Amino acid sequence: MKVKVEVRFKEGVLDPEGQTILNTLNRKGYDFVSDVRVGKVIELEVEDGIERYEQKIEEICHSILANPIIEDYRIIY
Amino acid sequence: MKVKVEVRFKEGVLDPEGQTILNTLNRKGYDFVSDVRVGKVIELEVEDGIERYEQKIEEICHSILANPIIEDYRIIY
Repeated sequence: MKVKVEVRFKEGVLDPEGQTILNTLNRKGYDFVSDVRVGKVIELEVEDGIERYEQKIEEICHSILANPIIEDYRIIY
Repeated sequence: MKVKVEVRFKEGVLDPEGQTILNTLNRKGYDFVSDVRVGKVIELEVEDGIERYEQKIEEICHSILANPIIEDYRIIY
């Protein structure tokens, strides 16, 4: 079974990669794009019976996959 | 309006970041995770009237956001 975790910078945290992409897009004439934010999507292949692991997946997100100081995460089952 | 683009390695392409996370998880005892794949989620803020830009967004994905040789992309409106 696959579990998807999206990790993104918190609001207000500078996103250099997003900024670089935006500058490139505008330089190439794609002016209809006004902002770009880049995050990660991490797909975990886990054993069936996900109810047993929900607590551990929260733990994994909080301690390994995301930096709680500057990032938010969202688990998509 | 926000347009989301997911960029992932193609099947069979080595994912060093995913492999590193998997090794870390298994070392910390999270054995129920058998595979990890990491991709990017890029969120574009675009002007309303998206129908006019669909073709250009494909162009952006193909030429700037993803490397068509090793990556696939998916546009989520």
